[in-house]
Amino acid sequence: MRINELKPILGKKRSDAALFYNSDSSKINANMFYFSGYKGLGALVIPKKHAPFLIVPEMEVQRAEKSMIKKVYSMKKKRFFESIYKIARKNRLNTKNIAIDKSSFTLNSYRHFKKQFKKIKARDIAFECLKIREIKTEKEIKILKKSCAYADKILQKAIKNFKKFRTESEASAFLEYEAKKLGLELSFSPIVASGSNGSIPHHEPSNSRIKKGFCVIDFGVKYKGYCSDMTRTIYVGKPSKKEQEIYNLLLTIQKNTINQVKNNKKCSELYDFVVKSLGKYKNYFTHGLGHGVGVEIHEMPNLSLNSKDRVKNSMVFTIEPGIYFPKRFGIRIEDTLLFKNKPVLLTKTSKDLLII
Amino acid sequence: MRINELKPILGKKRSDAALFYNSDSSKINANMFYFSGYKGLGALVIPKKHAPFLIVPEMEVQRAEKSMIKKVYSMKKKRFFESIYKIARKNRLNTKNIAIDKSSFTLNSYRHFKKQFKKIKARDIAFECLKIREIKTEKEIKILKKSCAYADKILQKAIKNFKKFRTESEASAFLEYEAKKLGLELSFSPIVASGSNGSIPHHEPSNSRIKKGFCVIDFGVKYKGYCSDMTRTIYVGKPSKKEQEIYNLLLTIQKNTINQVKNNKKCSELYDFVVKSLGKYKNYFTHGLGHGVGVEIHEMPNLSLNSKDRVKNSMVFTIEPGIYFPKRFGIRIEDTLLFKNKPVLLTKTSKDLLII
Repeated sequence: MRINELKPILGKKRSDAALFYNSDSSKINANMFYFSGYKGLGALVIPKKHAPFLIVPEMEVQRAEKSMIKKVYSMKKKRFFESIYKIARKNRLNTKNIAIDKSSFTLNSYRHFKKQFKKIKARDIAFECLKIREIKTEKEIKILKKSCAYADKILQKAIKNFKKFRTESEASAFLEYEAKKLGLELSFSPIVASGSNGSIPHHEPSNSRIKKGFCVIDFGVKYKGYCSDMTRTIYVGKPSKKEQEIYNLLLTIQKNTINQVKNNKKCSELYDFVVKSLGKYKNYFTHGLGHGVGVEIHEMPNLSLNSKDRVKNSMVFTIEPGIYFPKRFGIRIEDTLLFKNKPVLLTKTSKDLLII
Repeated sequence: MRINELKPILGKKRSDAALFYNSDSSKINANMFYFSGYKGLGALVIPKKHAPFLIVPEMEVQRAEKSMIKKVYSMKKKRFFESIYKIARKNRLNTKNIAIDKSSFTLNSYRHFKKQFKKIKARDIAFECLKIREIKTEKEIKILKKSCAYADKILQKAIKNFKKFRTESEASAFLEYEAKKLGLELSFSPIVASGSNGSIPHHEPSNSRIKKGFCVIDFGVKYKGYCSDMTRTIYVGKPSKKEQEIYNLLLTIQKNTINQVKNNKKCSELYDFVVKSLGKYKNYFTHGLGHGVGVEIHEMPNLSLNSKDRVKNSMVFTIEPGIYFPKRFGIRIEDTLLFKNKPVLLTKTSKDLLII
């Protein structure tokens, strides 16, 4: 809970409070969760000078009371922003100057919001929240390490059992089941992409049989709400010499890139390094090199072509070069790492080509 | 794909095209999926007079080509709305009059959008899309029936195996695993809430042991992208007479409410019927009575206190009254049903109190 880091930002933004909301029970508002530990429906208000409070539907009160926020209000049925306005007034907030996260606030919600907060000058703190979240605390690092250790353990178990899986869905279901049994959530729906499906970076596992050839497995769990993310590409059958060469080229590039990670290094330089190293294969690398991980699977820093971000201590992010030959096959190798004076791998499963 | 129903709406809104976008790979834009079958990153443009097209990042091109949309453009790295603008111009769209879904467009995306589409008069079609989606086609009904049949089958299997589960997480993991093995997605993360946890309607399954008493199991799958949703409350141990009475009261109310579902009936009246039937327990019913289901788990109609919606043919929605005694226990009984001249249950698992 880094509410204290948010407060000086509210000062700079001339805002009396920050407001985050979630109106969709099937989603989590990442900033609301980050600052409060609460994942449900409702709003989190963080006044500059007073204690934060949650305003939640009646059905969510018990859940909210289990969060880090001591003050919980129950809102009137169906009048979301009206309830929030009334409670804000009761708490003597200046309802003209509220800061919001404009990257999650929708146009229609804002319209409803403005009907109540009539004279609002809403400043955007989306970027500032991401910047706070980008640098992890010691406590967060501990949790992220554990999240990655769980991902390692479960992925290794899946690889060990891989021969038993007939379809991509079965392999994906196994990964998920092992995570859930341990009371973990998933960072995202696991990707198991066999044969030509591997050339689709975000392939959804299907009921199609696991074919001979490369199989990309991209997986991560959430432990205490914090994500891990890793990819291993294994080989089913007997790889040709050429296939082994391409795999080893990518692996060498991935390892070399990790060694390039230094304090204050431009993230775009890391991306450029990969493109350069790929040589004649550079056009087959079709996505960014990596991304920060935290309470969301994609956070800052952003490791891609036009990124302005730089590596700093206590950042946690992925390095995930890939090569995709459309309709033939794909290879991706991804680790989550912590930067603490030097790069520290948090996902530790072997990256040598595993032939099954 | 009901793009043809969208086109006259574009006429009324004086818009030359509709635009939907998704910039977060861990989410699905429901309208984009509904009109195109595409779940990935990028934008869907539906011109009033021409064929629809997708604009997607290079890494998503293969996935997009598997959708219902024939025309797929690859977008320049990192310049989302700039790419879209250029391709829109190339397609001779009037870039001043575009309709968007303001319930999913965020304030910051809109700012970037406006930088490109400078003179834009963006009309909102969020509500109109929900209204199209509210009435299901025969094809959608077939898919929804199958989705519910899968949910029934998997829930019954979980109940059969229930004695083996030590924790809520294990039961939840089992439900998920069975779904995933069949290549199905989940409508939402399954709720397994035992004992006092059952009094928290959106409880997240934890590693806590399954206790004696009521256990609420709320579960649904996605089949071909379409959701099912159902809740059964079982009893672990031996219920008291009082507990049986409360269960049977709720069950009777749930069944009676279903019998009240008639053409053109106000949804708020169904809600009122439940509140009235609950008598002295009415304050322990703390959420809405139900919601439409389709490509999203919560769609129109909305069956709650202030709803203006009415029951119409070919709607598919839930009826899910519940009673929650804070810190003691909770009971919820939920079915997904189709209205077709009369209510037709799509989830068919027995609702008699199952004692384990």
